[in-house]
Amino acid sequence: MADTREPKPLTRVALVGRHATPGVAEPLTRLAGFLTTHGHEVLLEAETAANSALASYPSAPASELGGRVDVAVVIGGDGTLLAMARQLAPLDIPLIGVNLGRLGFLTDIPLADMEASLAKMLAGHYIEERRTLLSAVVEQQGGIAGRALAVNEVVVSRGSLGGMIDLAVEIDGGFVYAMRADGLIVATPTGSTAYALSAQGPILHPRVPAVVLVPVAPHALTNRPIAISETSTIVITLLRGKDAAAHADGQAHFGLQENDRVVIARAAHPARLLHPEGYDHFAMLREKLHWSATPEQVRPATYAAC
Amino acid sequence: MADTREPKPLTRVALVGRHATPGVAEPLTRLAGFLTTHGHEVLLEAETAANSALASYPSAPASELGGRVDVAVVIGGDGTLLAMARQLAPLDIPLIGVNLGRLGFLTDIPLADMEASLAKMLAGHYIEERRTLLSAVVEQQGGIAGRALAVNEVVVSRGSLGGMIDLAVEIDGGFVYAMRADGLIVATPTGSTAYALSAQGPILHPRVPAVVLVPVAPHALTNRPIAISETSTIVITLLRGKDAAAHADGQAHFGLQENDRVVIARAAHPARLLHPEGYDHFAMLREKLHWSATPEQVRPATYAAC
Amino acid sequence: MADTREPKPLTRVALVGRHATPGVAEPLTRLAGFLTTHGHEVLLEAETAANSALASYPSAPASELGGRVDVAVVIGGDGTLLAMARQLAPLDIPLIGVNLGRLGFLTDIPLADMEASLAKMLAGHYIEERRTLLSAVVEQQGGIAGRALAVNEVVVSRGSLGGMIDLAVEIDGGFVYAMRADGLIVATPTGSTAYALSAQGPILHPRVPAVVLVPVAPHALTNRPIAISETSTIVITLLRGKDAAAHADGQAHFGLQENDRVVIARAAHPARLLHPEGYDHFAMLREKLHWSATPEQVRPATYAAC
Amino acid sequence: MADTREPKPLTRVALVGRHATPGVAEPLTRLAGFLTTHGHEVLLEAETAANSALASYPSAPASELGGRVDVAVVIGGDGTLLAMARQLAPLDIPLIGVNLGRLGFLTDIPLADMEASLAKMLAGHYIEERRTLLSAVVEQQGGIAGRALAVNEVVVSRGSLGGMIDLAVEIDGGFVYAMRADGLIVATPTGSTAYALSAQGPILHPRVPAVVLVPVAPHALTNRPIAISETSTIVITLLRGKDAAAHADGQAHFGLQENDRVVIARAAHPARLLHPEGYDHFAMLREKLHWSATPEQVRPATYAAC
Repeated sequence: MADTREPKPLTRVALVGRHATPGVAEPLTRLAGFLTTHGHEVLLEAETAANSALASYPSAPASELGGRVDVAVVIGGDGTLLAMARQLAPLDIPLIGVNLGRLGFLTDIPLADMEASLAKMLAGHYIEERRTLLSAVVEQQGGIAGRALAVNEVVVSRGSLGGMIDLAVEIDGGFVYAMRADGLIVATPTGSTAYALSAQGPILHPRVPAVVLVPVAPHALTNRPIAISETSTIVITLLRGKDAAAHADGQAHFGLQENDRVVIARAAHPARLLHPEGYDHFAMLREKLHWSATPEQVRPATYAAC
Repeated sequence: MADTREPKPLTRVALVGRHATPGVAEPLTRLAGFLTTHGHEVLLEAETAANSALASYPSAPASELGGRVDVAVVIGGDGTLLAMARQLAPLDIPLIGVNLGRLGFLTDIPLADMEASLAKMLAGHYIEERRTLLSAVVEQQGGIAGRALAVNEVVVSRGSLGGMIDLAVEIDGGFVYAMRADGLIVATPTGSTAYALSAQGPILHPRVPAVVLVPVAPHALTNRPIAISETSTIVITLLRGKDAAAHADGQAHFGLQENDRVVIARAAHPARLLHPEGYDHFAMLREKLHWSATPEQVRPATYAAC
Repeated sequence: MADTREPKPLTRVALVGRHATPGVAEPLTRLAGFLTTHGHEVLLEAETAANSALASYPSAPASELGGRVDVAVVIGGDGTLLAMARQLAPLDIPLIGVNLGRLGFLTDIPLADMEASLAKMLAGHYIEERRTLLSAVVEQQGGIAGRALAVNEVVVSRGSLGGMIDLAVEIDGGFVYAMRADGLIVATPTGSTAYALSAQGPILHPRVPAVVLVPVAPHALTNRPIAISETSTIVITLLRGKDAAAHADGQAHFGLQENDRVVIARAAHPARLLHPEGYDHFAMLREKLHWSATPEQVRPATYAAC
Repeated sequence: MADTREPKPLTRVALVGRHATPGVAEPLTRLAGFLTTHGHEVLLEAETAANSALASYPSAPASELGGRVDVAVVIGGDGTLLAMARQLAPLDIPLIGVNLGRLGFLTDIPLADMEASLAKMLAGHYIEERRTLLSAVVEQQGGIAGRALAVNEVVVSRGSLGGMIDLAVEIDGGFVYAMRADGLIVATPTGSTAYALSAQGPILHPRVPAVVLVPVAPHALTNRPIAISETSTIVITLLRGKDAAAHADGQAHFGLQENDRVVIARAAHPARLLHPEGYDHFAMLREKLHWSATPEQVRPATYAAC
């Protein structure tokens, strides 16, 4: 799961806080102070700076962080980290996620342990994971109507009118199937534990170089999730549906007309996630999904009726 | 599956055709002639009359057929029959469905056999099934914002913005769960082979006096379809969701605001469906769902790899 | 959910303990003393007496409790209660379940509250639920090779040789389908939260008068769980399978030969379960299945990525 | 999907027929004659020779074909091809599958077209696919109790006694979860359309270098299929279960005792499958799984009720 390159100390740190979350200013202030005291150079992401009134630190927009920092520390939830990962992946800046609440799939540093964990990680004791991103291009009447990156998934789905939509799916230029459904999810391994999981998709380990197509409420009972190579190009054409849209990470939305196409491929740059040494992807899944950790837990006396 | 009341000959026949389907005028004309020739009184549903230019027959709106006909024959697909069933259930008029295309779940008389099948059925050789309908009331700020009947299902679901919605579900006044999902389907046995089936719901035989709650893409992996008594009242409250709507049979739609409630209960009147003698619900399911009819079919020589 | 008959005080109490569970003797002794002190007549189920050395109380085999006690209190887990329910249903003796460990689906009195809860219930403050049992008859070459009752489910399934089996299913004399699968579960509403739930079956509320057929790993992707009237008779014929068996509640087992039939119907007598006043079936399910109890729980800050 | 190496003419051909299938002798004889006539050297697999009485051709056991033939043509079903693929993979001999009946997932040459298709393929006009095999080692009390190769899957599952088994799963030395279930399937992409699909597993394209762990009827509702890198080593330990066994391709079986371990890893040699030019994996899936081939098929007039 770890990259083999030699980890190196991370000196210049960008700080990002979940905007509009009341509790985020205090830990941001605390962390900025801690990092400065320990010799790090702190740069605030611009919107974070605007929202948190940490006037004494320099700031810059996320899009201008390239070359100016060694790492970005995101305090928030997985949603905040997703948004930042899409921005920082092309800039080759790694991310560390600190979770304000319970453990996230992506934000795995608990707020309470923040300083101790970050001190070790910034000193070079970390594991780096590369997570594939998807690029989605919405084609309309021959032109390009929209572009987006996605860390989790690209979805084409029906709207408020309640009727299923008809889609045609091509992979690497070959027709695969026409389907009627509420929607179709194209998820990365990272996204395989997000929306795709709710729609009965499989979990893909981040090291599996694949994307998974997961139908949502498919009309044909034989439609099943399909995992294909992450190097494949997927084209979804909206055959019929009045109110359909394409979504990237549930954060960017594009209305679709019939015959519009959504072209999905691996993005040029992966996101780089840093974890503490000892990070274990399955341990994280086990905790998030409440799988049994020990044999004892699967031997309840009352099993016979449950 | 059959009612025990003695079938009786059906003399006065309303004819209904799927509007805006080019091919429907010919069989309507043919059937009207056939019935008249054989001594039946034919009345055209008003919209059918307007669309098919069968000027020589009397017509009346569906809502005014009560007491004027013994049965309605619907030529179309299941969608046409659903719409008519909602209108005729309160009028206590039974329905016969003739399918223009392939076999429907509800329209089980093939067009080719239409005259022969109907002659027998109208002479009293039929099986009657009663199908429960649901009544849905949308409550908004204390007032009633909408009402609808449903033969298949009532759905509360998200809209085009792509985010899951939060719902609270009460049954008979008791809180059951709060859920996050794309939506929640409340389906009758009739609807259990429609949208609910796509969302992994079970099939309920029409004689089971139950409705089934089927979540669509539920966030919690432990959410499962639940069948409850058809006499229960279900209240779904929209806790969070910007673009949610309630749908009845996919044919009536109501936009929902947060805190709106959808109250679902058994409708006062069931729909009455007439089938040819020998009708077998499981045989119909077997054909529609492509289940194995014979042991031979489940003994392929190539089984080992599939 | 409650029966409408007037609850009445329960004076004569049979005590049953999970055999071979070390911790059961102490609460049994405590409870026997408590009941005697409060004027109840205590009778020990014979195996319980043999295992717990409570020499000072009279005892009788479960099969001879009919007419001698007003209620049986079972201390153990759901498995113990299942076994006793099958024995006491024909004797019309109601059951109360005290759980030694965590909450069971059936044993809903916590050990810690045992005396207080039972005092109220035995004084007449209880809710009675009737749970349908299934009767299974194994027919072999025209003769009867075995009989069993089941509270949860009857299963026909493959054995150790690892190959799927072929089954034919008839309902009320009509052929439904031939299927290839690991097995087929026929579950009561009580059993719908047991093995059937693991095999993707729906949850049936105990008041729904239905049984559900749930295939295990069906070869045909279109096979789905089907709920039918509890008054139906289901015949499962083993068409092919070298090592198949029929199981009742996972506690009685019958080896099957090809062409053997398992005939499943509603048993003559339901089990009678007593619950404390205020018992709520959905609250129990919510706790056991970890459904969200409050809207707050479904509004995590980190939702975007999960 | 195709290998990039230059295809080359295949001169020396081994013929294999499904043993004990009455109809196989005729096409074998026909094919042997056809190949000889067209200048190929024909060698019969020994068991095939013994069963088909084709006395005029030389024969050799499958295990001794290495270096003696350029390709093996298997006439039968997928099961026959699976068995031969396990034997020929270590010998680096490619396989072509001719199907006696309907299309197989692996045997994609129809019997009727056999000569024409094979003539082209043996002349070098083929696509080669490499399919990963799994190696399974059963460890018992420190020793090795069994070994097997699997093209489709390795399964650890319960036996006839009907109770679930408890398993612990480790991947690459790290504990993943303890689970209670009917069994656990570890499937290759090839096996993802076999037993694993019945147990709700995803379909993996053959080019995805992954294996998928699919639980069968898992007790915990949050257990889901997981795809991991095909380079991972998976260890399944039987924690509890009286009648459990390990299975490879449903064709090799090993009884398991508690604490036995099944160690699963990628086999040293993949199987080599040859397909006609123009072979399309998705087209094959579409036909086998009855997915919609054209948009028209997903626009039935009767959609509203189904």
